[in-house]
Amino acid sequence: MTEVFDVERVLAELTLEEKASLTSGADFWHLKGVDRLAVPQIMVTDGPHGVRKQVASSDHLGLGEAAPATCFPTAAALGSSWDVDLVRRVGQALGRETRAHEVAVLLGPGVNIKRTPLCGRNFEYVSEDPVVSGEIGAALVDGIQSQGVGTSLKHYAANNQETDRMRVSADVDERTLREIYLPAFERVVTQSQPWTVMCAYNKVNGTFASEHDWLLTHVLRDEWGFEGLVVSDWGAVHDRVASLAAGLDLQMPASGPRPDEEVADAVREGRLAPDVLDQAVRRVLRLVARSLPALAEPVDVDVDAHHALAREAAAAGSVLLKNDSVDGAALLPLTGGDVLVVGELARRPRYQGAGSSLVNPTRLDDALTSLRDRLGDVAFQPGFTLEDEGDDPALLDAAVTAARSASTVVAFLGLPAQDESEGYDRPRLGLPDNQVALLHALAAVTPRVVVVLANGSAVDMPWRDDAAAILETWLAGQAGGSAVADLLTGAAEPSGRLTETIPLRLEDTPAFGSFPGEHGHVRYGEGILVGYRWYDTRLLEVAYPFGHGLGYTTFGYDEIAAEVSGVGPDVTVGVRVRVTNLGDRAGAEVVQVYVRDPQASVVRPVRELKAFAKVALEPGRSRTLTFELAARDLAYWHAGQRRWVVEGGSFVVEVGASSRDVRGAVEVEVEGEPLWGELTEMSTIAEWLEHPVGSVLLAPLLEPPPGEPGLDELDATTLAMMLQMPARAIVDFGFAPVDLEGLAALVARANA
Amino acid sequence: MTEVFDVERVLAELTLEEKASLTSGADFWHLKGVDRLAVPQIMVTDGPHGVRKQVASSDHLGLGEAAPATCFPTAAALGSSWDVDLVRRVGQALGRETRAHEVAVLLGPGVNIKRTPLCGRNFEYVSEDPVVSGEIGAALVDGIQSQGVGTSLKHYAANNQETDRMRVSADVDERTLREIYLPAFERVVTQSQPWTVMCAYNKVNGTFASEHDWLLTHVLRDEWGFEGLVVSDWGAVHDRVASLAAGLDLQMPASGPRPDEEVADAVREGRLAPDVLDQAVRRVLRLVARSLPALAEPVDVDVDAHHALAREAAAAGSVLLKNDSVDGAALLPLTGGDVLVVGELARRPRYQGAGSSLVNPTRLDDALTSLRDRLGDVAFQPGFTLEDEGDDPALLDAAVTAARSASTVVAFLGLPAQDESEGYDRPRLGLPDNQVALLHALAAVTPRVVVVLANGSAVDMPWRDDAAAILETWLAGQAGGSAVADLLTGAAEPSGRLTETIPLRLEDTPAFGSFPGEHGHVRYGEGILVGYRWYDTRLLEVAYPFGHGLGYTTFGYDEIAAEVSGVGPDVTVGVRVRVTNLGDRAGAEVVQVYVRDPQASVVRPVRELKAFAKVALEPGRSRTLTFELAARDLAYWHAGQRRWVVEGGSFVVEVGASSRDVRGAVEVEVEGEPLWGELTEMSTIAEWLEHPVGSVLLAPLLEPPPGEPGLDELDATTLAMMLQMPARAIVDFGFAPVDLEGLAALVARANA
Repeated sequence: MTEVFDVERVLAELTLEEKASLTSGADFWHLKGVDRLAVPQIMVTDGPHGVRKQVASSDHLGLGEAAPATCFPTAAALGSSWDVDLVRRVGQALGRETRAHEVAVLLGPGVNIKRTPLCGRNFEYVSEDPVVSGEIGAALVDGIQSQGVGTSLKHYAANNQETDRMRVSADVDERTLREIYLPAFERVVTQSQPWTVMCAYNKVNGTFASEHDWLLTHVLRDEWGFEGLVVSDWGAVHDRVASLAAGLDLQMPASGPRPDEEVADAVREGRLAPDVLDQAVRRVLRLVARSLPALAEPVDVDVDAHHALAREAAAAGSVLLKNDSVDGAALLPLTGGDVLVVGELARRPRYQGAGSSLVNPTRLDDALTSLRDRLGDVAFQPGFTLEDEGDDPALLDAAVTAARSASTVVAFLGLPAQDESEGYDRPRLGLPDNQVALLHALAAVTPRVVVVLANGSAVDMPWRDDAAAILETWLAGQAGGSAVADLLTGAAEPSGRLTETIPLRLEDTPAFGSFPGEHGHVRYGEGILVGYRWYDTRLLEVAYPFGHGLGYTTFGYDEIAAEVSGVGPDVTVGVRVRVTNLGDRAGAEVVQVYVRDPQASVVRPVRELKAFAKVALEPGRSRTLTFELAARDLAYWHAGQRRWVVEGGSFVVEVGASSRDVRGAVEVEVEGEPLWGELTEMSTIAEWLEHPVGSVLLAPLLEPPPGEPGLDELDATTLAMMLQMPARAIVDFGFAPVDLEGLAALVARANA
Repeated sequence: MTEVFDVERVLAELTLEEKASLTSGADFWHLKGVDRLAVPQIMVTDGPHGVRKQVASSDHLGLGEAAPATCFPTAAALGSSWDVDLVRRVGQALGRETRAHEVAVLLGPGVNIKRTPLCGRNFEYVSEDPVVSGEIGAALVDGIQSQGVGTSLKHYAANNQETDRMRVSADVDERTLREIYLPAFERVVTQSQPWTVMCAYNKVNGTFASEHDWLLTHVLRDEWGFEGLVVSDWGAVHDRVASLAAGLDLQMPASGPRPDEEVADAVREGRLAPDVLDQAVRRVLRLVARSLPALAEPVDVDVDAHHALAREAAAAGSVLLKNDSVDGAALLPLTGGDVLVVGELARRPRYQGAGSSLVNPTRLDDALTSLRDRLGDVAFQPGFTLEDEGDDPALLDAAVTAARSASTVVAFLGLPAQDESEGYDRPRLGLPDNQVALLHALAAVTPRVVVVLANGSAVDMPWRDDAAAILETWLAGQAGGSAVADLLTGAAEPSGRLTETIPLRLEDTPAFGSFPGEHGHVRYGEGILVGYRWYDTRLLEVAYPFGHGLGYTTFGYDEIAAEVSGVGPDVTVGVRVRVTNLGDRAGAEVVQVYVRDPQASVVRPVRELKAFAKVALEPGRSRTLTFELAARDLAYWHAGQRRWVVEGGSFVVEVGASSRDVRGAVEVEVEGEPLWGELTEMSTIAEWLEHPVGSVLLAPLLEPPPGEPGLDELDATTLAMMLQMPARAIVDFGFAPVDLEGLAALVARANA
């Protein structure tokens, strides 16, 4: 590899044409270099859960065969571990493989919020909650970048569906962006400074993300302090001059020469400031420069160790949804006997989704083999075919017959591969009918049915009474099969928790009726009520709530306390809880801290996750956890004043094991900050009266004319009506002895 | 009164200053005249359900005492009759009283859609459904205007809440406006040409309705052909020059001289076209001129006849929600025995709402007196106080004691007056706690409890199992008390039906979470899924569905048929149903025709009301009803092409007695119109392939390069991904052998 070069020296020597050219890729996967200045080409390649380094370069969608790499669990599974230390270790392994493949930047992680379970790409994302998404995303970035290679935080922003993704405008109000769709990006940027951020394909409120100055510059750089490079999603740039002006630095993939010429022309003709182009090129050169040291020192990969890590992560990210007792004992872990495995997916695992994230795994574990390794003789019946979703009576009957004589049936069910892909959304929320029919037939002959699920995003479970136990493995990567065997047999303890609610039915989901939009627009009608914020605030029943997950032991919570320090924007809340492993097995618990603001002047979700910790405990052992919530954790985005506001009053801090398994709540009083803003002639009487100066100035105007009642004498309805009137209205109606000029003078004095 | 004048002659003689001046009111209730040209002042006054002609003029909010007039049932009650003939007769009576009071225009009806039951002014509106709202509104306009006086259709548009009504922006997409919030206005304008339309206070998508050119001119006049005058809601104008330019004609109330001067200045300085001002003044003069003939011939009012009509309408608009059998017989109608009346509201009726619609009634019936008139001795216990919502144990105990020995208890419950008013929204969905506690205590001692409700908008009914019968009377006007007695005793047949869903709880309502908005904006997040469209499409349980209502007889539906004629925009569907009175009493049924489009390419509600008819039948008699649905009844608003579109495929026509009591459904096949529009470089491959010319042009570009698979050889996931890509993307990715210029040429040829 080349020596690291001096970015500013190179920049100073570049021609305008060279600069313009450097803001687009050399081909599908490489940035351009500058031979005469010894700037080499670097390679970037898809993630996020494995290195997808294409071997054949001729394929035009960039989806061709890749070199073998460890296929770690997808983000859906990784996130369900809620284990930032584990995820950081996975990140380190991903970074090492990236470096081993001589790739400078791994294109991930993705932290888009799961607005709907139908988003085809949800398996690449972490959660319906921004705190979980941000923490897991930051851990991945920390881990990958610890190896001297870069990441690309994506897809910024509001890329929450695949339908029409290259055109659709996500129509979403600022508060919803600030509270739901941006904070995960904000957390990763401010905590971990990813080398690059990838802008999304879609529009946000009518403007392409690739040309969105507010997103790419105002928020990302000016507010959050992002120091890296903004790269386009592949094909997201339509007008590079507009994109550069908005804050994009690099168009990928190669664009052909014409757009490069347009950039140079724009600078020559004064339509693009030279400084803007210089800054983009500087960021491109810095990216190249910062990647060279690691690329200069290739590393080896311990394929076995990475496979083991993938197995550990797959186990940690699987969620035991249900584990009922039959004949007096919980079905899991399996305790031997005649175990029958049913389901084609047991031997042909679904372990990742389709599209740009498709990894060519170094090896692949299937659950059937792994279970036989652990349990010895295990019978198998395929039960259904993956190719045809119609019933296959012969397969079904054979499975049912075998089930009659089995001590326990483990049914491997899941979504077909074509249901979950980048590029289009899921056609349905449910499993294929033939799988559900099989399960129902099995349940008719035995109560001892365990369902193991493989799917990248929530499925509905109207069949859940047919299973005594349900283990959701998501898309668990190349070692998912052995991890499942570990969990089913008790060699590993289930400790995953849901990062997305499992709803009862599609009609209950927040975006139903506004997803996927039509004719170029998708209305984010549910606003901030996404995920459990929706289900809990609307009091909807769910199949399994956000944060839920069982283990083979249970945990107790006590000594829950919360204490406030400081005031307004400086407030903090210290939270403490003691957690105890009440069972006789080791295990791990995900302790979740939620906040609610029961007295807010704006709509707020009934609860919002603000902190969490995963704690592993031996039987009988306790640990006291502490969390510190900041003002931001109590604040809402004030859309009028465009700032975060801590509104005074009581807040309730809830500590629990899911959004619906709150183990304790502490009410605290918080001294907030003043909410009044500038007064105008359209400020209401109530707003004037809340304003420290305005109230004094307005008082004389509210003196009634002779014979009419004053404010304090009005009946309740008239008073309520008056308080909501703009000051201007009482002037228009002749109620106040002042004209519009007089009111304007008052406004000026009030704001002075 | 003055002779009718020649509008054009007067217009020609007016000075600029006079013209400017005529576009604002003379005082709170009068338009200006022009003495020198013998143009008199005319008066307008509040409706909508009675003439509120103020007697004292000094009151600055215009809410002072009014001359006596018949207080007809509020719109909520009138609409619940679903009886356009009856409503037209009420309109005639309103028009006659308007004329008798020498008023030119009655300020009503209101046809805003009930987006949320919490809107404080819902009692002035008809329904959550635009067809019912439009038909009832048109009948009122027809009736009133038949008397030679005018109406003011209000509040145009999207004035669906009182909170912050003078400032808030209703942020609502065009399809939702077109399908939900505008059609009632459209129906009234196109069917009945109200003399005036009143613009709303609020903003629509950021622009005050009073300055909204698209609403006031493009849609109202250019599309719907409105020929009358647009008047502001009182105080809704902030910049009369901007309002005039947008299509407003008259600012009310008086503005003082300054805004008049601003208008004249704007014309002099070329900022306002003289033609625009002339047109507004012409409309003002025409309004004056058209009102003069009737005002010249005052009429008397038959107060007794109008009271009787108010009583008939109150009975017709009351909805019998429930009438269970106890001891083998339905509780209603009352058959004598010891009837106990409970509830302060039986002797102090709530019969209208607060605010500008408050009528000073010519007389006032209370239910207690009316029941005693019919049944003789009827015991009474107040049960609770209206002033204090806390429990009053003495009142409650006395009522319960009395209930123990009563054969039937009739409990009069309802919302306190201060819960429902113009100017602010309802604080809650439920009845006061003390009333619910009373009911519960009554139910504990007798199963024979009838609840009679008085409230202007839906209340939740978690207590509904405590009542064997529930009669919802809404706010039923001055004769509500006697009408209730008629219904309870069987002297009148209950035939009202719900025009709004009664939800189980506030959290189920469509706007929950986005109502009432904050900081100047309210997001119409639920889009077109308003009212039953929401509950039915989201499969939510409700207390009582839209269209529901019982009588003392029952009806059968048979011979349901539907037949399609024509194609695309000319399609019609003839619907036929035979309705039979199956009981042994006369009664009336509201037959409802719903349409669903199960194969739509956009989100559509699971059913939408498109036609209805109320039919009165003697016992055992049948009648066959026919309806003709037009293309518009099948169409949706295509937001991309901005037009109504009938999409081909099957439609289901449902005929029933409520949105959840469908008695028969007929599936019909409709030949739709082409949906493809202009192609662009951003049109997807799928859109190109659907286009008759584009598909031919694109085909050669989709031939794969050597060694890569063609579209027909791609696997399902890659094909699905490809079809959603814009044509530009396949050029950007180098997939197609054409550059952007080549693509632009194809676009031009495809659209040629």
